[in-house]
Amino acid sequence: MAEFMTGLKRSCYCGEPRLSDVGKTLTLCGWVQRQRDLGQLIFIDLRDRSGIVQLAFDESTDKEVFHKAFTCRSEYVLAATGVLRERTSKNAILPTGDVELEVKALRILAKSETPPFAIEENSNVSNETRLRYRFLDLRRPDMQNILMARHRITKCAHDYFDNNGFLEIETPDLIKSTPEGARDYLVPSRIFDGKFFALPQSPQLYKQLLMISGFDRYMQIARCFRDEDLRADRQPEFTQIDFEMSFVEQNDVMAIGEGFIQKVYKDLLNIDIPTPLRRMTWQEAMDRFGSDKPDLRFGMELHDVSDCVKDTAFKVFHSALPGGSVRGINLKGHAKDLSRKEIDKLGDWVKSYGAKGLAWTRLADKETSSYEKFLAPEEAKAIREAMDAEPGDVLFLVASDDNTVVYASLGALRCELARRFNLIDKSKPCLLWVTDFPMFEYSKEEGRWMAMHHPFTMPNPEDLDRLESDPGSVRSIAYDMVINGYEAGGGSIRIHDTDLQQRMLQALGFTPEEAQRRFGFLLNALKYGAPPHGGMAWGLERLVMVLLGIDDMRDTVAFPKVASSADLMSNAPDVVDPQQLADLHIATLSKKE
Amino acid sequence: MAEFMTGLKRSCYCGEPRLSDVGKTLTLCGWVQRQRDLGQLIFIDLRDRSGIVQLAFDESTDKEVFHKAFTCRSEYVLAATGVLRERTSKNAILPTGDVELEVKALRILAKSETPPFAIEENSNVSNETRLRYRFLDLRRPDMQNILMARHRITKCAHDYFDNNGFLEIETPDLIKSTPEGARDYLVPSRIFDGKFFALPQSPQLYKQLLMISGFDRYMQIARCFRDEDLRADRQPEFTQIDFEMSFVEQNDVMAIGEGFIQKVYKDLLNIDIPTPLRRMTWQEAMDRFGSDKPDLRFGMELHDVSDCVKDTAFKVFHSALPGGSVRGINLKGHAKDLSRKEIDKLGDWVKSYGAKGLAWTRLADKETSSYEKFLAPEEAKAIREAMDAEPGDVLFLVASDDNTVVYASLGALRCELARRFNLIDKSKPCLLWVTDFPMFEYSKEEGRWMAMHHPFTMPNPEDLDRLESDPGSVRSIAYDMVINGYEAGGGSIRIHDTDLQQRMLQALGFTPEEAQRRFGFLLNALKYGAPPHGGMAWGLERLVMVLLGIDDMRDTVAFPKVASSADLMSNAPDVVDPQQLADLHIATLSKKE
Repeated sequence: MAEFMTGLKRSCYCGEPRLSDVGKTLTLCGWVQRQRDLGQLIFIDLRDRSGIVQLAFDESTDKEVFHKAFTCRSEYVLAATGVLRERTSKNAILPTGDVELEVKALRILAKSETPPFAIEENSNVSNETRLRYRFLDLRRPDMQNILMARHRITKCAHDYFDNNGFLEIETPDLIKSTPEGARDYLVPSRIFDGKFFALPQSPQLYKQLLMISGFDRYMQIARCFRDEDLRADRQPEFTQIDFEMSFVEQNDVMAIGEGFIQKVYKDLLNIDIPTPLRRMTWQEAMDRFGSDKPDLRFGMELHDVSDCVKDTAFKVFHSALPGGSVRGINLKGHAKDLSRKEIDKLGDWVKSYGAKGLAWTRLADKETSSYEKFLAPEEAKAIREAMDAEPGDVLFLVASDDNTVVYASLGALRCELARRFNLIDKSKPCLLWVTDFPMFEYSKEEGRWMAMHHPFTMPNPEDLDRLESDPGSVRSIAYDMVINGYEAGGGSIRIHDTDLQQRMLQALGFTPEEAQRRFGFLLNALKYGAPPHGGMAWGLERLVMVLLGIDDMRDTVAFPKVASSADLMSNAPDVVDPQQLADLHIATLSKKE
Repeated sequence: MAEFMTGLKRSCYCGEPRLSDVGKTLTLCGWVQRQRDLGQLIFIDLRDRSGIVQLAFDESTDKEVFHKAFTCRSEYVLAATGVLRERTSKNAILPTGDVELEVKALRILAKSETPPFAIEENSNVSNETRLRYRFLDLRRPDMQNILMARHRITKCAHDYFDNNGFLEIETPDLIKSTPEGARDYLVPSRIFDGKFFALPQSPQLYKQLLMISGFDRYMQIARCFRDEDLRADRQPEFTQIDFEMSFVEQNDVMAIGEGFIQKVYKDLLNIDIPTPLRRMTWQEAMDRFGSDKPDLRFGMELHDVSDCVKDTAFKVFHSALPGGSVRGINLKGHAKDLSRKEIDKLGDWVKSYGAKGLAWTRLADKETSSYEKFLAPEEAKAIREAMDAEPGDVLFLVASDDNTVVYASLGALRCELARRFNLIDKSKPCLLWVTDFPMFEYSKEEGRWMAMHHPFTMPNPEDLDRLESDPGSVRSIAYDMVINGYEAGGGSIRIHDTDLQQRMLQALGFTPEEAQRRFGFLLNALKYGAPPHGGMAWGLERLVMVLLGIDDMRDTVAFPKVASSADLMSNAPDVVDPQQLADLHIATLSKKE
C-alpha cells in the first residue's frame, strides 16, 4: 500500500486493500461509483484514481451510518472508516475483489448532482458532452490512465536527459514574431503600443542561442503554439520534448534520441527496443513506401513501372513520364474482397492526394483492368511481372508528371489498404530513422523554395555548391524518428556559421535587410563563436498516441481545444472588457459590428 | 570524467582532466578564454561549462598547428587533440591546474569577432549591454552556475513530487480571461473574431478542476504571465512550482511543502532544514515584525506603546489611537552611528509607506528626541520602558489611525536598519510558515473587499458567520512559506462547495450572473462532487534568488525581460506584418498614427 507520508486521515488508496490487510482499520476516500440498496444490505463501490473497493453496510452497522449510506448517490464524495474483512462472494475481476470495508463511520464530504454521463471506461458519450464536462470525463479510468502515462513519459525525459548531462533551461514564451511556415499567435504589448509579442512555435532559436552560450546540453518540455486550422491530430498549443547538444554530428544526436525512446518503451510498456534503430534515406522511403514516415509493419511496397511503359501510346502513362513516373502497389490475395464499386471509391479518394485517377487490375477468377486494354500486351505483361502479380492480387497504379503526387497517393493508399485488410503486424512497434531529407521543397502557393525542416538546418556539405543553382537537389542533415508510420520526432544538425546562415536565408528569398530584421539576434550571435550543434524534438501528444495506440490527440491532453480552437468547458476564447482592449491600444474589427 | 555515451569526438569536458589522466590522448572542445603568445610558446586557456584547461604549444608542436594556435583569439571555438602531461608550473587555483594538453591536432570550429565584454565572473558591464548580448553574458561562469542550480531545483521538484505520488499534468496556456487582481495578457482569436484568449496568471482553476477530476495529487512547473508594471523582482512571464492535493487539511499540504524545501536545501546546498518548520499567525507576524514575511534572522521587534500614551495630549499620538496605534522599534546600540541628518532621511523614507512621519529618540551621550518634549514625563518614561531603552539605543515610533500603515512603515524600517547595520545572521537560512491570513483586504481604489489570497480560498469555518457582516475579521486557511524575509511560496485550502463559493464571490462584489460568466465552469464542476483539496506554489525565480543569494531576478532567467517588458536581445515586442493583424480582426490604435 502507498504510505501517505503526511497526517492524512486516509489510510491508503481505494484500489490497494488486499486479503493480507483483513482485520485492519482503514479510512478510505473517494467517489461513489455505484450504490446498491438490497434492503438490509447496502453496498457502495468507492472509486479513486487507483481503482475501486467495496464498502459494506448491514444490520450490524450503526443506524445513522446506514441511513447515510442509503442517501448516497453516484459521484458523492465519501470518507469511510471501518474494518477490512474478507468477502463472502468474491469478485475475481476487481484487484480488491477479495475484501470489503465493514463501515463504522461515514462522512459525506460532498454531494453530487446526477452527472450527465456515467463515469466508466469507454462510455458512449458524444465528444461535445465529454469536452463540455471535461472535469467529469477525466474521472474515467481510461482518461486517468492516459494522463498517468503522459506523466511517466515526461518523468522519463527528465531523468534520462539529466542522467546524460542535459540541463533543463526554460526559454521565453513572449518572443518576437518570426513566422516562417505556420501562423504565430500574437500578444499585444500594453507598454509599447502598436507592437506585439508572439508565442513560440518552437524553442528553436533560443535553444541554438543556449548552445552558443556554452550550455553544451539543453533539454526542455516546451509548450509550443501554432495558429493553424486544426485537424484531428493538431492542437493550437502542444508540447515538445526538446533537446539540443554541442560539438556533435548527426550520429551523436541519434544515439541520445534512441536512448530516450528505448527507456520510454521499457519503463512504460516493458518493451525492449533494439538500438541502433534502422535507418533509411528519405529517397528510399519515398521510393519504396511513398512516404517520409513509412510504416514498415507491413509490405506492399511501391513498384516503379515507368520503364515498362516508357514507349507506350497510352496517354495517361505516357504524359506522366517526362518529369514524373508510373508506380504501383500490389494488394496481394484480396481480389475477391474488393468490389468494382469499392475500387472506384478508392479511385475518387486518391484524387484528394492530387492523383488524376487510379489505374487498376483485379486478378480475380475473372480478370478485369482499367488500363491493360490501352497498353500493348508486352507492356501489360511487363507491369504484371514488375509488380509480382499473381492470381488473387489487385494492382493499383498512379501516373503523374509530379512524383510527389505519385508518392502521396500510393503512400496513402498503401496505408488505407493495410488498415482495411488488417495487414499490420501490431505485435511489436516499428521504429526507424528517416535521414537525408531534401533541404528545400518548392511551394507553389508562395512561388518560392521553402525550408522543408527549417531555415537553420545544415545542408549536406556535399551538396553545398548547388544551394543556389539547383536547390531541389540539396540534401539536409535532418532526420525524423518514425514510429509505426507516424513522425514521432525529428531534428537536424544546425548551421553554426554566419555566412552560411546568411546564404541559406538568401536562398529562401530573404533580402539581407529582412533576414537581419527577423533573425538579427541569431545572425549576430553566430559571429561570436558558435559550436557545431544539433538536436531534435518529439511531439509529446504524438508520442502518447503512438505508445498507447490512441486515435484522438485530444485524449492525450487534460484540457484540449476542439477543431475551432475553442475550449468547450470554459468557453474560451471569449469577449473581454473594453478597458482591457483600450489598455492594449487595440480595437476589434469584428464582422458583427 | 564524464563518459560521453555517444560517438562524440570529445573525450571529456575541459574542467575534468587531472594528474591521474596524464599520458592519455584526449580531445577537448571549447572556447578560447585567452591566448598567451610567448614567442616560442603559446598557451591557450580553453573553457566550457565545466571549467578551464590549458592547451600548450611549443617547439615540438607541428608547425601548422602552432600557427593555428597563433591565430586564435578570444571566444574562438576549438577542438584540440593531444596528450595530457603534468605542468611544470602548476596553477593551484584551477582544478585542472596540475596538467596541460600537449596539442597534436587543432581544429578551429568557429571564429569570433571581438566580444563587447570579457567572459568573466562578475565582469563590470552595464546591464543593458549584458542583456543585449545575453548569449555572451550567459557564457560567464556565474550565470552558468545559476542556471545549473535552477535546473537542479526543478529536477528536485520532479523527483520529489513523483516519489510522493504526484502526477505532472499540463494545464492550458490559452485560457479564458478572468482577471481578478493583476492584468491578463490577451491573445486575439483568429477564428472567433472579437474574442480573445488570455495567458494564465496561475494554473489555479485548472488544478482545482484536476482535483475534482480525481487525480488526487497534481504538480506542474507552470509558466505564468502577468501584464503588470515591472519591478526589479517581477518578470512578465515567470515560473511556479505548483502542486495540489485532495482529501487534505492544511497540515498535510504543509508537510509536503516542507519535505520539498528540505530536499532542495539538502541537494543544492547540503544544508539540513529541520522540520516541521516554525509557524506564526499573520497577526503575530504583523504585531511583532510589521510584515507578513518576517525575517527572523534578527530581532528589533515592534513594540506597541499605544497604552503608554492612551491619555496623551500630544495630538500626533492621540489622533492615531481610536482606530490605529503607536508602535516602535529599538535600534540597540547604534545611537552614535546614526546622525540627525540620517534620521531625518529615514523619516522621509517611511513616508513612502504611508506614515506621516517618524518620531524618534536618540540615546547618545546627549539625549535628543523628536517627541518627548510633547509628552508628559511619565508617558515618555513608559515608552522608554516598554521599548527596553538603554543608553546607546535609537527609538523609532510611527503613529497612524491605520494599522496597516504602522506595520508597513516599521516593518520596512526594521529591515532597512538591519541591512544598514549588518544585523542579519546569514550563517543559516530562516524558514517559517505564516498562517491565518485575513480572507479579505479592503481596496480603497476599488472601493470593495478583495480576496487577499484568491477568491477560491477556504475561509476559517469559525469565522464563516461574519463573512457578510464583518469581512475584515474573517481569517482564511491560507499559508505562506517565508524564507529569509521573502515570500518564497504560498497556498491555501480551497472551497470545495458550490454554495460557499457562490457566497464568497458575492462577498467580493460579484453578481450571480457575473460570477457565472467568469467562473461558471468552476461553479459547475463543484456541483458534481468536489473533494476537500488544497495546495501551494513557489515562485521558481524567487526560490533561486533566495537559495543562491541573488539580488536581481533577471539573473535567474536565461532570457529575461527588462522593466519595460522588452527583450533587448531579440527586440521583442515588435511591429508585425499588417496581414497578421488583419487575420486576427484587430487594428492598433497607436498614438503614433
